[in-house]
Amino acid sequence: MPVGTKGTVKGLTPGDLRNVGAGIVLGNTYHLYLRPGADLVREAGGLHGFMGWDGPILTDSGGYQVFSLAETRHISEEGVEFASVYDGSRHVFTPELTTRVQEELGSDVAMVLDECPPANADRTYHEDSLRRTARWAARCKAAHEKEDQALFGIVQGGLYPDLREQSLGLTVEIGFDGYAVGGLSVGESREEMLETLALTAPMLPAEKPRYFMGIGDPAGILQVVALGVDMFDCVLPTRLARHGAALTPDGRLNLKNARFRNDFGPLDPECSCEACTVYSRAYLAHLVRENELLGHRLLTLHNVRFSVDLCRQARREIEAGRFGAWSRAWISRYQGGGG
Amino acid sequence: MPVGTKGTVKGLTPGDLRNVGAGIVLGNTYHLYLRPGADLVREAGGLHGFMGWDGPILTDSGGYQVFSLAETRHISEEGVEFASVYDGSRHVFTPELTTRVQEELGSDVAMVLDECPPANADRTYHEDSLRRTARWAARCKAAHEKEDQALFGIVQGGLYPDLREQSLGLTVEIGFDGYAVGGLSVGESREEMLETLALTAPMLPAEKPRYFMGIGDPAGILQVVALGVDMFDCVLPTRLARHGAALTPDGRLNLKNARFRNDFGPLDPECSCEACTVYSRAYLAHLVRENELLGHRLLTLHNVRFSVDLCRQARREIEAGRFGAWSRAWISRYQGGGG
Repeated sequence: MPVGTKGTVKGLTPGDLRNVGAGIVLGNTYHLYLRPGADLVREAGGLHGFMGWDGPILTDSGGYQVFSLAETRHISEEGVEFASVYDGSRHVFTPELTTRVQEELGSDVAMVLDECPPANADRTYHEDSLRRTARWAARCKAAHEKEDQALFGIVQGGLYPDLREQSLGLTVEIGFDGYAVGGLSVGESREEMLETLALTAPMLPAEKPRYFMGIGDPAGILQVVALGVDMFDCVLPTRLARHGAALTPDGRLNLKNARFRNDFGPLDPECSCEACTVYSRAYLAHLVRENELLGHRLLTLHNVRFSVDLCRQARREIEAGRFGAWSRAWISRYQGGGG
Repeated sequence: MPVGTKGTVKGLTPGDLRNVGAGIVLGNTYHLYLRPGADLVREAGGLHGFMGWDGPILTDSGGYQVFSLAETRHISEEGVEFASVYDGSRHVFTPELTTRVQEELGSDVAMVLDECPPANADRTYHEDSLRRTARWAARCKAAHEKEDQALFGIVQGGLYPDLREQSLGLTVEIGFDGYAVGGLSVGESREEMLETLALTAPMLPAEKPRYFMGIGDPAGILQVVALGVDMFDCVLPTRLARHGAALTPDGRLNLKNARFRNDFGPLDPECSCEACTVYSRAYLAHLVRENELLGHRLLTLHNVRFSVDLCRQARREIEAGRFGAWSRAWISRYQGGGG
């Protein structure tokens, strides 16, 4: 899921998203609640109408953004009080409020409000937190009224296998349309992340979508898909683009590198997106160096297309029963190349 | 002519330019000479190949940019020495060099190197300058070898009618494929500009294109067209877009204005561009407030389309013999509206 933080995937139109094959986009409740406001988005016909995208939209609950700002937030059983990044104004997110806000935004998939504990939290903190998260999840489900909107629960529990199991049990017991694994990709090593996910994912109901929150690098996507994950969101493709980097099967290319200055070949010879078929690496490198809007746009277009294509191919390989071997070869090539 | 300073019209692809109906774009020799360098652009197949635009391109000589930087440049009969805005390195533009550079860029129309005198220059300065500009123009013509590239001369002379006539006579005597009126839109009043143009334009050869350098506001375009001008370049539509302003038949709209926050109507109901047909003013205002790339892109798309459409309509009105009345009504509506 490409990330459209503020109701737009950086530099891309809904038409661009359709052209690169994106099947769903993610919107950030935290940002949209603060600006332009959920009431205004509802008046505009929901996020679909507001941003002109008629495909599926998943909204997060805003919890992740709130909990990232550790200094200015205060957690209670009721919810979490925080300061706006825009103007410092104080707000309270409760399970009921974030559910209502997501109903106003009109997304197709809403997420429960969960706590994503700080990276340095100890076992006791995690245990208390996952139980509160489960109580909040039950309140979200009770508050949820929009019938054409799915609601997903979120499993927490840090890196503790038994706490993950406990959180998963409590969440599945409430019952949701899909389940997310949260609280990973928050500073732990890749090995710790994959180990924890490897323990958690198989216990999730097989018939419901499994969403891993916060992975976007191509190798990471294939690694979590191997563990049974169906959905993931990633700012990485769009963020890399703004920093002048492109994803290719041979690794990440930094277009600020001097060797691209007079490289008249295509960005990624195996890609058929506009950036790769109309322009040369030399032109894209020029746009990146000059910080031109068109450079951001074309690299974003390519990186999102690349990620969507990767997922599409992974799906084909799974269906053909070849995913394991294909994925190992793909990662090996990706990690061997680059520049 | 939308301006593609550094080989890109801010945020728009060549496909976008074709879609909005742009028939020609302008490239800046000064910037492209310094970055990425004319040799590199030549290697990429000229500016057409480099930027992926197969329509006509006009390049300026770079003189205007050099002469804008009064503190760091030194003029001699040979040419003008200046410092790069990028790294302070010293360069010399001679008529021969700017002609060769434009041949390397491969534009369809090249301009002679002229001096655009400072706004506070006196009559003596203008007289000396216009004669040197004519000598430089002759050297440009002598150096010009590319047969499929037109070369335009430039008339100077400040606000002095007799000096304009003198400059025009010297330039036409050399003989060019088209003629530009330079040295206006540099700080004088709109009345002074139009008076001087009204004296100069009718003396230009009727069978050659007349190019007025540096007008881009809609009313100004119609005013110079009324005086017989055929071509003009304008950063205004793209610059306004980056500042959150949109051109409409009822004047300029500043989308940061609070009243657009919940205005769900189209940007310009009479326009059929993507910005006006897919999105609301409220959404565009949100993008502008959040400084989102997509906001810059959509407003640029609209403003360029608006300007191109205006010129196309002006052409139809001229052909139908109704230009005068139509133009007066158009300007009156434009100047009466806005926000």
